[in-house]
This record gives sequence, structure tokens and C-alpha cells, in this order.
Amino acid sequence: MTPEPTVDPQAVVDLLGVLAYGELTAFDRLADDARLAPTLAGRAALAGMAAAEMGHFARLCARLAQLGADPEVAMLPFVEVFDSFHATTAPSTWLESLVKAYVGDGIAADFYREIAGFLDASTRELVLEVLADTGHSDFALREVRAAIATDPTLVGRLSLWARRLVGEALSQAQRVAAERDALAMLLVGGTSDLADIAALLKRLTNAHTARMRTIGLSG
Amino acid sequence: MTPEPTVDPQAVVDLLGVLAYGELTAFDRLADDARLAPTLAGRAALAGMAAAEMGHFARLCARLAQLGADPEVAMLPFVEVFDSFHATTAPSTWLESLVKAYVGDGIAADFYREIAGFLDASTRELVLEVLADTGHSDFALREVRAAIATDPTLVGRLSLWARRLVGEALSQAQRVAAERDALAMLLVGGTSDLADIAALLKRLTNAHTARMRTIGLSG
Repeated sequence: MTPEPTVDPQAVVDLLGVLAYGELTAFDRLADDARLAPTLAGRAALAGMAAAEMGHFARLCARLAQLGADPEVAMLPFVEVFDSFHATTAPSTWLESLVKAYVGDGIAADFYREIAGFLDASTRELVLEVLADTGHSDFALREVRAAIATDPTLVGRLSLWARRLVGEALSQAQRVAAERDALAMLLVGGTSDLADIAALLKRLTNAHTARMRTIGLSG
Repeated sequence: MTPEPTVDPQAVVDLLGVLAYGELTAFDRLADDARLAPTLAGRAALAGMAAAEMGHFARLCARLAQLGADPEVAMLPFVEVFDSFHATTAPSTWLESLVKAYVGDGIAADFYREIAGFLDASTRELVLEVLADTGHSDFALREVRAAIATDPTLVGRLSLWARRLVGEALSQAQRVAAERDALAMLLVGGTSDLADIAALLKRLTNAHTARMRTIGLSG
């Protein structure tokens, strides 16, 4: 039997804090982007994705409270990185907002899956539960594929946009890792081995590239 | 035994359409206003209210689909009135946005309660179910009362704001009633008696005045 991994309690609070603030800003951005929708159905779909983020947010905050942590305090260290990320990646068209929702949803899911193994049983359960609540980006997938089928010249511009999103996300993630030691250690399974970090980034990047192919863009 | 009320099917579609679009715009406005929050807790509270509106929205759309109506088509006639209402009542401060959330939530609940009696059993059940999911405006109530206790000079300005909200809402409601005959008839229980309409408005206004007293403002 594998023993329960030993996890630094501050790292778990950091992790739940970063996830919670990530959900809150995702809500904010999706709600904002919903206004770019050309149809009421599109607007409702993005607003529905936004609402789902608040469901996750509430669960993450409840877990923080259970651990004796103030959710607001746990989120504060991550406010600036998320706000910078969203400020530098504000979509200027409806299709850009759908690509952002799709890319963000996918990377978030992969990330949740990667870290689940390093957590104590009950935090892991919560993380997997939030992860299981997916399928919200199917709408984005369908719409973007249909748009590309109608106008193949979109591929170049939207692929470039997706690359910019991932680049910005990685650069903000590096900032977090540099500033929050315990969290960074947790994310690589308690080792500070650079090869492990590289392998994690490689897995996330490969999965992202596969998703880009699925939606019809180049990675 | 009282017989089931006979309801014009177009009126029910109109009603569900107006409620659905009302929820979608309420989502939009609450999500927007959440950004005025001075704290993360306040921002999360308003974002949570917004997310709850999308839950109602999904239920209303499902019922429209069940009745064979396209939710988008059902909502379209009401887009302009709601959009004008929100355009003319955009809060300029956090407290104004809380008063708007509180006033809007209260009037919507009263309105749902008023019409429930005129509906067929299964639409009534849905309307009451959506109505039961309240309590989201407790946060607004608490915050506004606390702010007034600290600075009583706020009472005058916020009372004026609340009166403006209700005035705008009534003027948009009159526009809807004038344009959608079947819906207007449904709302007054199948009579076009002016005394009944006046009585309905009186009940809504009295309930609003009582809520204003509760939050510490003048009606």
C-alpha cells in the first residue's frame, strides 16, 4: 500500500487559493466575453460556463474554511498574476473569446489532474470532483470548428492567439512558482528536480497541442 | 375544487421568455457590478448571485423547450426593454449596485409570486421553485445596513437611487404590457379591468416600500 503523501499544509492552502481565485477570474472573464456573443444562445452558453466556475469556487472556499483558512487571505497572493494574465489576453472578438474559454478549460483540467496525485485524500477528492464537472467547452469547440469550416483563413490568426494565451499563462505560472516555494514543491511532487518540472510542462504542452488539433488549430 | 385556470399558450411562452431574458440580463449586470466590490468576499457574493440567476435561466429555457418553443425566439421580444432598463440604471458605486441587486431580487420574487396563481400546475411549480431559491440578497442587505450605520448621509442618495430604479422598472413594464396583449392579460388574471391592474401595482409597491424600510432607506 502506498502511504498518503505528506503535504505541506501551507502548500495546500496556496493551491486551493490559486484555484479559487482562478475560478473567480474565469467567471469574470467569461461573463464579460458573453457580451461579445452574436446570438442569445451563444451568450447563454458562455454565461452558463461562467456560472459553473462559481460552483467550483464555492466548493474550494468551503474546503479552505474547513482547513481553518480564510478564503480571501488564501486568494490574495494570486490576485495580481491572474489579473495581469487576463489584462494582457482580453479577447477582441467572439471567436477569440471561445478559443480562450476552450484553451483555459483544457489546461485547467490537465493541471487539476496532474496535482491530484500529490494531495491528501479529501483534497484530492474535491479536486477530482471539480475536474469531473466538464463538458462546458463543447459549445466553444463546436462553434470554432464551424467558423473555421466556413472561413479557413481564420486558422492562422486563431492559432497565433492560442499560442499567445499559453505563452502568457506559462509566464504567469513561472512568476507564481518563483514566489511561492511550498506551492511549487507540491506541484512537482515534493521534488525540486528540474527534470521533473520539465516533464510536467512537456505533458501539459502535449495535451494542449492535441486539443488544438481537435479544434482545428495548429499548436 | 377550483378548476385549472385556462391560460393562453402564447402568454405562457411570453412569460417564460420575459423571465428567462430577465435572468440572463440580471446575470450580466451582477457579474459586471461584482467588479465594483471593495473586497474579494463582496465580489464573490455578487458573482454567486449572478451564477444563481443562470440556474434559474436554465430551468426556464428547459420548460420553454418542453412546450415546443425556441428559448431564443421567446426571449427576443423582451431584449430591448431589459437592455434599456439596465442601460439607464447602471450603478456608479458599489452601494448602488447592492441596492439594485436587493431591490431587483425583491420585486422579481413578488412578481413571480403574483403570477404563480394564474398558471397551469407545472409552470406554476417551476415558477415557485425558482422563487424558493432566494436568500442571495441577504449579503446586499447586510452590507447596505452596515454602510448606512457608519454614514447616515447615505440614506438620502440611496433612497433616491432606489426610487429611480423602481420608476424605470415600472415604465419598462408598461411598455411590455402595451406591446404584449396576451402576457398583459395573464398578469392580471385574465381580466383587463383597470382596477385589478391598479391593485397589482399597489401590492408590488407596498412590498417594495416594506423592503426599503428593512434595508434602512425611505420608500
